[in-house]
Amino acid sequence: MGVRVLITQGDPSGIGPEVIVKAVRNLNKKERDNILLVGDRDIFIKAGWNSNLCSIIPTEVFGFRLIKSTSNAFSGKLSFKSLDVALKILESKRADALVTAPISKKSWDMAGIKYPGHTEYFRKKFGKDLLMCFNKDKMNFALLTEHIPLKDVSRYVTQHNIKLKITLLKEMISFFNFSKNPIILVAGLNPHCGDGGVIGMEEKKYIIPAIRAMKKSGVKVFGPYNPDDIFEKYFKMKANGAIFMYHEQLIPLLKVISKKNDIVHITWGLDFIRTSPAHGTAFDIAWKNIADETSMYKAIKTAMMLIRRKNSF
Amino acid sequence: MGVRVLITQGDPSGIGPEVIVKAVRNLNKKERDNILLVGDRDIFIKAGWNSNLCSIIPTEVFGFRLIKSTSNAFSGKLSFKSLDVALKILESKRADALVTAPISKKSWDMAGIKYPGHTEYFRKKFGKDLLMCFNKDKMNFALLTEHIPLKDVSRYVTQHNIKLKITLLKEMISFFNFSKNPIILVAGLNPHCGDGGVIGMEEKKYIIPAIRAMKKSGVKVFGPYNPDDIFEKYFKMKANGAIFMYHEQLIPLLKVISKKNDIVHITWGLDFIRTSPAHGTAFDIAWKNIADETSMYKAIKTAMMLIRRKNSF
Repeated sequence: MGVRVLITQGDPSGIGPEVIVKAVRNLNKKERDNILLVGDRDIFIKAGWNSNLCSIIPTEVFGFRLIKSTSNAFSGKLSFKSLDVALKILESKRADALVTAPISKKSWDMAGIKYPGHTEYFRKKFGKDLLMCFNKDKMNFALLTEHIPLKDVSRYVTQHNIKLKITLLKEMISFFNFSKNPIILVAGLNPHCGDGGVIGMEEKKYIIPAIRAMKKSGVKVFGPYNPDDIFEKYFKMKANGAIFMYHEQLIPLLKVISKKNDIVHITWGLDFIRTSPAHGTAFDIAWKNIADETSMYKAIKTAMMLIRRKNSF
Repeated sequence: MGVRVLITQGDPSGIGPEVIVKAVRNLNKKERDNILLVGDRDIFIKAGWNSNLCSIIPTEVFGFRLIKSTSNAFSGKLSFKSLDVALKILESKRADALVTAPISKKSWDMAGIKYPGHTEYFRKKFGKDLLMCFNKDKMNFALLTEHIPLKDVSRYVTQHNIKLKITLLKEMISFFNFSKNPIILVAGLNPHCGDGGVIGMEEKKYIIPAIRAMKKSGVKVFGPYNPDDIFEKYFKMKANGAIFMYHEQLIPLLKVISKKNDIVHITWGLDFIRTSPAHGTAFDIAWKNIADETSMYKAIKTAMMLIRRKNSF
């Protein structure tokens, strides 16, 4: 059985179609044979696709009109439709992995689709616990909470949630490097990890007990660490993964340490593999043929690798 | 009138005495003549001080015993005493600036001193609005909130507080580079700055109106920006300062972009200049003669510079 990777077009007003075509061009013939693009055929042609490159499953939206570089209902409808077509194929087991180009939350909103993003939609649709993770080289960094207001983060810092995310991350890493017992670090929540309870109690009440409990069950998990120190510790301890408590604790640091646009976003916990580039629609540079396809290329390659690992388990 | 800089010993169990002596050695004779160390004389001698280096105002604690590399009540008492002696001198206008070596919050606690740090003590003692700011080269990064639990941060994100911090930062920057109307950027609070209210309302309700109001009164202030983007914007816009909403939004990024230990911490809003190195007591490397004095050296030089600027205004 080959590895069959679906790539959804994403928001056609953004850089999705361009980075998809550029990235697929960088694949070899055998790899390209396993690729199925899902989206508006004319849009893909406009972005440089031709039938020698790879196959397409065309999706259409009645009356569609391309409005470049801005959110709009047409683009929202189209990107959601591509996604739903792809999910149907995945559910019928006719594909193994999904790579998604970025959608615009605002376009979805304008099209009446009330999900802030792919992951939230998957969570709702499949009723599963999912892990949002970012991979770059040996770094596997996951989030405990995602797109929620900062003031609500503390509410999600529970023993249950921390254990759940550690379990999902451990599973994902074991597919990545065959390490059955990876080393996982956990970030704190408060300044100086709460300084023994002086600056917040979540470390004492939830994070430390969760780490202790996971340790007892045999998982190599350590923390909590300051986000200041966690990167240094990560490399010193040859760790395989880390859990961060909230979006801003991870994403800005990730961007600063990785200027090369080579981060891959992975959703773990679905019945299929799902990856995506770690960037957005980038409307400001869309349809100018200047977008960098590295993250999309790595998302595709990572998806292929994960399928092979999963199949060999 | 010369510039008279007091340097408090900090926690004698940590790296304070060592980095002070090393840093003062790097000053020239004229500069050293303006330095007054405040702390236990024997400790300074142990750290390499001799009377040719600079003057000392000795402070003593009855029965003092040096316990290296760990928090203890003796060290807490001594570091607090040095600080209080220094503050008396400053209040009587017999000095212009205070440079503090790091204290241990735990040592203070063990000595019965119930302040989490210098800044909180100053705020209480002098009843003033103070700004905690970090300087490195052309970067002046200030915090809206400091050592508070993450879940409480949102409560401090008010129009009043944002305007206040912008005003203090603007004043500080004007002393730094004589720019009467510096460009100041403001970070958002929530992921993607709340995404128009979908992920948190603080941007819409407080941050944007505060920026708008300050702009109307003639201040060049812009934002809110994602912490992901604020550094890029900072250099592109040739900004002079930025306000971050909470501790973890700034400190980890600052450490990642500055491996050279050359960040200076400044408290603005006092009647005197106050700087300090941006590191802690570093008990793990204390009294091994391996501590790096760069941040302390820059703290002293920055204090001297700020006094001169202030005097020339």
